[in-house]
Amino acid sequence: MNDLEDLAKLIRYYSLVSTTEAGSGHPTSSLSAADLMAGLLFGGAFRFDLDDPRHPNNDRLIFSKGHASPLFYAIWAAAGKVTEKELLTLRKFGSPLEGHPTPAFRYTEAATGSLGQGLSIGVGMALNAKYLVKLPYRTYVLLGDSEMAEGSVWEAMEIAAHYKLSNLVATLDVNRLGQRGETMYGHDLSVYRTRAAAFGWETIVIDGHHLPQIQTAFDQAIRPIDKPVMIIAKTLKGKGVSFIEDKNGWHGKPLKKDELDRALRELGPVDKGLRGTIDPPQGAKPAGKKAVKAAPVSYTADKPVATRYAYGTALTRLAPQYPDMVVLDGEVSNSTYAELFKKAYPDRFFEMFIAEQNMVGTALGLSLRGKIPFVSTFAAFLTRAADQVRMSQYSNGNIKFCGSHAGVSIGEDGSSQMGLEDIALFRAILGSVVFYPSDAVSTEKLVEEMAKHKGICYLRTTRMETPILYRNDEAFWIGGSKILKSSNKDVATVVAAGITLHESLKAYEELKREGILVRVIDLYSVKPVDVATLRQAAEDTGFIITVEDHYAEGGIADAVRTALSKHPVPVHSLAVRAMPKSGKPAELMDYEGISWKAIVEAVKDRRQ
Amino acid sequence: MNDLEDLAKLIRYYSLVSTTEAGSGHPTSSLSAADLMAGLLFGGAFRFDLDDPRHPNNDRLIFSKGHASPLFYAIWAAAGKVTEKELLTLRKFGSPLEGHPTPAFRYTEAATGSLGQGLSIGVGMALNAKYLVKLPYRTYVLLGDSEMAEGSVWEAMEIAAHYKLSNLVATLDVNRLGQRGETMYGHDLSVYRTRAAAFGWETIVIDGHHLPQIQTAFDQAIRPIDKPVMIIAKTLKGKGVSFIEDKNGWHGKPLKKDELDRALRELGPVDKGLRGTIDPPQGAKPAGKKAVKAAPVSYTADKPVATRYAYGTALTRLAPQYPDMVVLDGEVSNSTYAELFKKAYPDRFFEMFIAEQNMVGTALGLSLRGKIPFVSTFAAFLTRAADQVRMSQYSNGNIKFCGSHAGVSIGEDGSSQMGLEDIALFRAILGSVVFYPSDAVSTEKLVEEMAKHKGICYLRTTRMETPILYRNDEAFWIGGSKILKSSNKDVATVVAAGITLHESLKAYEELKREGILVRVIDLYSVKPVDVATLRQAAEDTGFIITVEDHYAEGGIADAVRTALSKHPVPVHSLAVRAMPKSGKPAELMDYEGISWKAIVEAVKDRRQ
Repeated sequence: MNDLEDLAKLIRYYSLVSTTEAGSGHPTSSLSAADLMAGLLFGGAFRFDLDDPRHPNNDRLIFSKGHASPLFYAIWAAAGKVTEKELLTLRKFGSPLEGHPTPAFRYTEAATGSLGQGLSIGVGMALNAKYLVKLPYRTYVLLGDSEMAEGSVWEAMEIAAHYKLSNLVATLDVNRLGQRGETMYGHDLSVYRTRAAAFGWETIVIDGHHLPQIQTAFDQAIRPIDKPVMIIAKTLKGKGVSFIEDKNGWHGKPLKKDELDRALRELGPVDKGLRGTIDPPQGAKPAGKKAVKAAPVSYTADKPVATRYAYGTALTRLAPQYPDMVVLDGEVSNSTYAELFKKAYPDRFFEMFIAEQNMVGTALGLSLRGKIPFVSTFAAFLTRAADQVRMSQYSNGNIKFCGSHAGVSIGEDGSSQMGLEDIALFRAILGSVVFYPSDAVSTEKLVEEMAKHKGICYLRTTRMETPILYRNDEAFWIGGSKILKSSNKDVATVVAAGITLHESLKAYEELKREGILVRVIDLYSVKPVDVATLRQAAEDTGFIITVEDHYAEGGIADAVRTALSKHPVPVHSLAVRAMPKSGKPAELMDYEGISWKAIVEAVKDRRQ
Repeated sequence: MNDLEDLAKLIRYYSLVSTTEAGSGHPTSSLSAADLMAGLLFGGAFRFDLDDPRHPNNDRLIFSKGHASPLFYAIWAAAGKVTEKELLTLRKFGSPLEGHPTPAFRYTEAATGSLGQGLSIGVGMALNAKYLVKLPYRTYVLLGDSEMAEGSVWEAMEIAAHYKLSNLVATLDVNRLGQRGETMYGHDLSVYRTRAAAFGWETIVIDGHHLPQIQTAFDQAIRPIDKPVMIIAKTLKGKGVSFIEDKNGWHGKPLKKDELDRALRELGPVDKGLRGTIDPPQGAKPAGKKAVKAAPVSYTADKPVATRYAYGTALTRLAPQYPDMVVLDGEVSNSTYAELFKKAYPDRFFEMFIAEQNMVGTALGLSLRGKIPFVSTFAAFLTRAADQVRMSQYSNGNIKFCGSHAGVSIGEDGSSQMGLEDIALFRAILGSVVFYPSDAVSTEKLVEEMAKHKGICYLRTTRMETPILYRNDEAFWIGGSKILKSSNKDVATVVAAGITLHESLKAYEELKREGILVRVIDLYSVKPVDVATLRQAAEDTGFIITVEDHYAEGGIADAVRTALSKHPVPVHSLAVRAMPKSGKPAELMDYEGISWKAIVEAVKDRRQ
């Protein structure tokens, strides 16, 4: 049996000295949850192999209130896995102990620090345990009371209850104080209890500084039940140090040296040799799976297919070869065609309803447990989860996004449904891959590239049917492109992808009739971009026209200009620049100046 | 007294014929709420001047479930303000009756179509009535049950209750069916009632097709009470047409001609001459306000000031001159320095807690009622509201965003807190203005430019203190830039803004010591960009180096290359390209290759 009181004291000591040494950080937000986390890790409920943090059956612990990182590091120090010397590198350049937890620290399950995202990640890990690998591990999430204002938390709450995630335990640290003052509800725990219960959770209300209550709560939380459990704990920010306890104005402030001395005197003697023990996980193994080679791609050249449809077909085709593939969709699977996968592999499909933030957070959790999640909704609605997409890069997330209904070419539904900034969003993610296929064959091949690649990938699909451009055995790769038309008399190069590639091919024919030849490039890999092919085209033709069903900023034009930075030629961008509206696809492409007519005109005007 | 039953029938007729004529659209989602909206508009509670939709004391009506646009247009037709002929232009190019409501239609209060955003817009309009103009108008929001899964709805719920918005009435159309099947809760209205009550709302549960119940509910909803009210109505999707009623598979599908004939036969005779009447609003006038000229900008040249601090100072300084200015902040006002305004003008400041989506939706609602909302949080956390920012452009929103803590130069807090994609996000908004000031004086001037300009503006501020670069009487404008260093021997041009401009100036001095001269440009207006100055610099120096504390995509480099599209020169981009981490600002800028050292090196290597 661990001495929880002494361990909590040691954890407080570590939280205080590391932040004072760093000269910044969040000691008070750490102290409020110190007893809760001591009770969780060392009170008997938690199962974890300290020497193998990636053990598939470890319990998972996510600090959704990532600013309590001093506490996070301190608990692993109390478990003997971080030295006091290492703790004193907190927030220093090169230290794995960053200001908010990141994977640089080996016990971090997911990077946090943008509030309200941890519970969604926990939902992903709990879904994995319950429905995919069928392992008894539990997922614990530490929440702050301020972040309960984030809607994403309530998305995670409703989905966790919907999927009956009895293996998910949230601990809510109600310390009353946010960054600049009191939260909306202060210490009124009944608000949180009523809301959590209304969202289908089991609730346990406790004094978050009473160790026996804490221990009982975690014991209760792991009893069999068909709901997720939230432990709602009344705590004091800065608990244990009288002059900062429950006081406003102490958020994100370390103690000065003399204040630290006072605080440590108050804390009293600390047993620095003490080490908490944790029971190892059960030896259960993940449910087995076997890869079976996927069937080949097979399209008929004369039958148009929407790339969004090919996305669904590709998922289904590739499923046997990639047993870790799972698919999530935001209640539009009959539009994105993720439903094709759902019908074929219902056990590997998760309906995430109209809650895109939680969908992406959940996908991150699944990816961090080894799954390859494919996530789809309208491209426009992926913007809803931009912060979750952003944060997933800091967890080294391996998520495959598909945004359907790209551009004004969706037609009558109008501006709200048109993805016109999605390429800009995904290009600005570190190391991301951005694909924009123009036909079904390339879509199939690129979906497979996404499945194979480790990292964040985005696939942009088109609503309407488009002709097949490629043979079934054509190869496509990250950073590639295709030259579809080329001669030694090309007066310009037209670079396009998706719907506008087909407009470019129409323009090519029209120009050819008039004796004007242009090169046409399918830029299916918008990031990374095929620098060599673009440079050659620039050198050969001296003038480039980009055409994209996307706003003028952040998309194909920017990608092409970047590729030509060293040896630039004029690049004329055709893109969406007028307020989009309802209408027929062809009318709207004309209106925006991205149809074949605008391309013909731009080629003719090229030197003006 | 209006004959509600006949009006509801007429509205159903309009919803059906307009969508069949359009060949697309959402008749079934319209029919479920037809009785509710007939009851609202024509049942006596609603006050509206049909000839003056912009009347400041009109009740406001927002269709959060924007796909029910056929119903939206039909109710105004039933009020005599849209002809049947106009209804038949639904979704056609050039028609104000777009697929989802936009301001092209004069009765649209706000563009909708991305679900879960309407209630936040309503919160803004209700805040305006209750706290700013002190008018008795009410704000009504029609919600669908599918969109209740969106976290943003619960953000709006909690904030509406927090601000005791008794003038806000939500009507929840629980028709059970989403796009691809049943919602999480089907017709279990108790789930919505319990949750709404837990979030502090008064609830009224009714049969949404029982007109007397509907009328009573709206009468009840406008009785004095200190809470917002939600009418939760059990409805049937497709109600009134037996073969589509309550049936899955009919989302977003118009009836075919023969199906329409059958449906109209079922509907029975419709009185097309019928017109519903609405009582006009009370003649109350908005609370008065008077503009008083702002004090001049006044900084001391030798005292560094953080641009984030100058933002707060600027808001406070400009408040008297722009009485419509209001400020919203996401629980970080002591970091963004919006708190300076809050302290000086508490009545014009709204604490929006950690709920960025609702903050932006609320700002949109305020702006649509004539306010000039300034919205602040960390730049990184504005990504949380990317979809709300996106949608605000379609409402012609007039919102001023400020993102603080830009870039790796924030230091120790680490990647999760660093805004590194915010310029990409805001550049990809149609007609947006993107400012990135480098000192306090330019910040002050640019905040005023934002207040004067009608449209979406973004201001990026820096965490640390930076030297004053400009005289207090220096002028700055949209689309401008400043040449800080220039000679006729410049071998390159360094283009920067914000923190990297100061690095550029250091590099200039270092290079000058070695006899190398460069031009230095402060690109404070990243969008629109100063094409003339950049072209001149390109012509004069033949080589441009951009330096930005932002990811390489979508930021300053892309803006500069776009400006030089016609007459390009090589543009070398220094930007954030390595995984960001914790550390001192200077260490991190070195690590990312955006410090003065990297600039010096890039200038020396310029032709390689």
